[in-house]
Amino acid sequence: MEGEPTLRLRIFDLNCWAIRYLSKRRQERVRLIGDTLCREGFDLVLLQEVWSEQDYSDLRVKLAGCYPFSHYFRSGVIGSGLCVFSRFPILDTLLYQYSLNGYPYMLQHGDWFCGKSVGVSVGVTAPLLSLSLQLHAEYCREKDAYLPHRLVQAWELAQFIRHTSKAADVVLLGGDLNMHPEDVGIRLLRGWAGLQDAFAEATHFEGCKNGCTLVPDNCFTDKSELLPFPLGIRIDYILYKAISSFTVKCEELKTTTGPALGTDIPFSDHEAVMATLHIQRQGQPVGATPGTADLALVDVVAEARTEVGVGLRAAQRQRYSSGRMAVLALLLLLLQAAAALGTLAGLGAEQPFPKLSFCLLAFLALGILVLAAGLHLFHTMEVKMLHGTEDQMWMALRALQERP
Amino acid sequence: MEGEPTLRLRIFDLNCWAIRYLSKRRQERVRLIGDTLCREGFDLVLLQEVWSEQDYSDLRVKLAGCYPFSHYFRSGVIGSGLCVFSRFPILDTLLYQYSLNGYPYMLQHGDWFCGKSVGVSVGVTAPLLSLSLQLHAEYCREKDAYLPHRLVQAWELAQFIRHTSKAADVVLLGGDLNMHPEDVGIRLLRGWAGLQDAFAEATHFEGCKNGCTLVPDNCFTDKSELLPFPLGIRIDYILYKAISSFTVKCEELKTTTGPALGTDIPFSDHEAVMATLHIQRQGQPVGATPGTADLALVDVVAEARTEVGVGLRAAQRQRYSSGRMAVLALLLLLLQAAAALGTLAGLGAEQPFPKLSFCLLAFLALGILVLAAGLHLFHTMEVKMLHGTEDQMWMALRALQERP
Repeated sequence: MEGEPTLRLRIFDLNCWAIRYLSKRRQERVRLIGDTLCREGFDLVLLQEVWSEQDYSDLRVKLAGCYPFSHYFRSGVIGSGLCVFSRFPILDTLLYQYSLNGYPYMLQHGDWFCGKSVGVSVGVTAPLLSLSLQLHAEYCREKDAYLPHRLVQAWELAQFIRHTSKAADVVLLGGDLNMHPEDVGIRLLRGWAGLQDAFAEATHFEGCKNGCTLVPDNCFTDKSELLPFPLGIRIDYILYKAISSFTVKCEELKTTTGPALGTDIPFSDHEAVMATLHIQRQGQPVGATPGTADLALVDVVAEARTEVGVGLRAAQRQRYSSGRMAVLALLLLLLQAAAALGTLAGLGAEQPFPKLSFCLLAFLALGILVLAAGLHLFHTMEVKMLHGTEDQMWMALRALQERP
Repeated sequence: MEGEPTLRLRIFDLNCWAIRYLSKRRQERVRLIGDTLCREGFDLVLLQEVWSEQDYSDLRVKLAGCYPFSHYFRSGVIGSGLCVFSRFPILDTLLYQYSLNGYPYMLQHGDWFCGKSVGVSVGVTAPLLSLSLQLHAEYCREKDAYLPHRLVQAWELAQFIRHTSKAADVVLLGGDLNMHPEDVGIRLLRGWAGLQDAFAEATHFEGCKNGCTLVPDNCFTDKSELLPFPLGIRIDYILYKAISSFTVKCEELKTTTGPALGTDIPFSDHEAVMATLHIQRQGQPVGATPGTADLALVDVVAEARTEVGVGLRAAQRQRYSSGRMAVLALLLLLLQAAAALGTLAGLGAEQPFPKLSFCLLAFLALGILVLAAGLHLFHTMEVKMLHGTEDQMWMALRALQERP
């Protein structure tokens, strides 16, 4: 960016909802997204939920002319679903996987299998760090069992940005954060990483009311889920941060509103977010986050830490019950082994059980043992990570409170 | 470090080999390590393999006077085993878990269960970034099945340092890298992250010949493993990097040589590494890594990429065979279900098998199905991560080759 006083950057962000065999009219929509991106000529495109590598390859071929640089981030069983297309060279990429991401046995939620991550690309017009990401989904707002995991992810993301952002002049983050604007996770991310919300900062806005990206008007959204929110909810964000001697201004923010131009379907079940940013070099280096915000930040970090603590205790209970189940199954197996040995040695009178039931019971016990031991290991890791995050947050609180 | 032209920093690094119930004379050695650290008064202490949180707590209590700041990094099932003690405040901590770390079914090697990570602490005398870490162990040098995983770890570590180090004036890394000095992983780490080896740079050295930290003279080492290396091997390192306008010089490097002062036992099965560094502010900012080193770096990255490719193909084979095994088990189960239904419906003549064997076979098939499906998932993730690393390395090679 040296010697170039102002840069106008147009960014496109979309959760594409492109799950093979499951998402409706997927191929048609991916084609549509590709056509629109070609026509509109953004500078940077951040996509999520492109689960099929074939879809990425098709997009790459189609967009080769207008976005010669791209990267697909691989992780987890299914993949992270993240990819980035850019008009400017991508110099380096990095993948940061969250340490917690749901439960492998919650097959119907599937988050664990995606290996949710932050895909970081460096470059575009170096030094610019752009992150494409998705956090754990919220399946039930009233009883959100995944809140601690989502908070750990938000915290890790914020820590990651704090530690990597010094290498860049500007950090850009686009993605489906699966959190409402006033949720503690968003406040944590904005406060602790010092990110600004393009929607809140935009001089001009055009699109769905309140910048919502999950709206009842979209023909693919689940209407019943949006009943408490008749206007929809805003869960897709473009956030940014300028380091050192740069300033970023959001000139315009847009969201799509339903069917794409000339068709009867929208791009996805989410609306796309498009921002036009002005990046300018300043004469004077801008100072760090002002100390006046520290008090509010203390509250946010403390609130997040409380929620992580709730998750920690739940994980400890699950670790305990799975461990107890494993011990019980092991005891049953040992008892059976003793009975079998006793019968073999001719100690007992007659064979106490029919052979078949005896075997069935043994296999059942073995199955439970393996399953419960696996769960115990998983929840032990969960406890460690939640505890570790709680520690880190405590350290952050101490540092904030000790600040002059 | 502002306004302080020279800083003398004394660092202690040790793989403590403190595994509960397994490590010989563990408590005695941990006490000994604590006493020595108290007496010697280092500035920064980086410890690995402190698997028991109780040992950490004991050390913390003992060292509270001379090292008032400390952190224990939690991860994995057992824990990362990493901790740091510091004479200066630790402002922030961060844990980066490697995406690949061995196999959960290799119980005898156990690396997977530790959730090996890099523990990053920021502070000491801010801005100083210190990393304590351990990479995957090498169990057989001739046929090192874990080499691709260790290379992925070295690459992720190097990428992590590249992206986070701009926030610091000096990066310090101490740990058990489980690699010989000439190994491709070490060359990758040094070349790609721009780290310097304290042993190679030290003005004055004192300790085991060639700086070895795993020596046959140590009463806890496995002599048979060290037969091909009669002098021992160097696998514990202190590496450093100065950013922007700082220079770091290693004044002295020492290793312990067997039994600790006044006792008959050494601290651990590894020797400790102790460095005295001089950190100085320079008038002129130092430039980036010189371009002359780029050619050598291209070779190193290409070599590492080849090894990762070998690992990728092995993982793909394992994914294929576990998938095939799962399909076969499923077919057997379906066949049995069909036979059972046929018998129930009275289609077959008599019951074709004795009930017990039939049940046993079904349970065996079910067990194999669950196991093979689990393995298939695991190797799918492994393939994704190896593939992702191969991509990143390719991008790095392209960037290196395109550099003017």
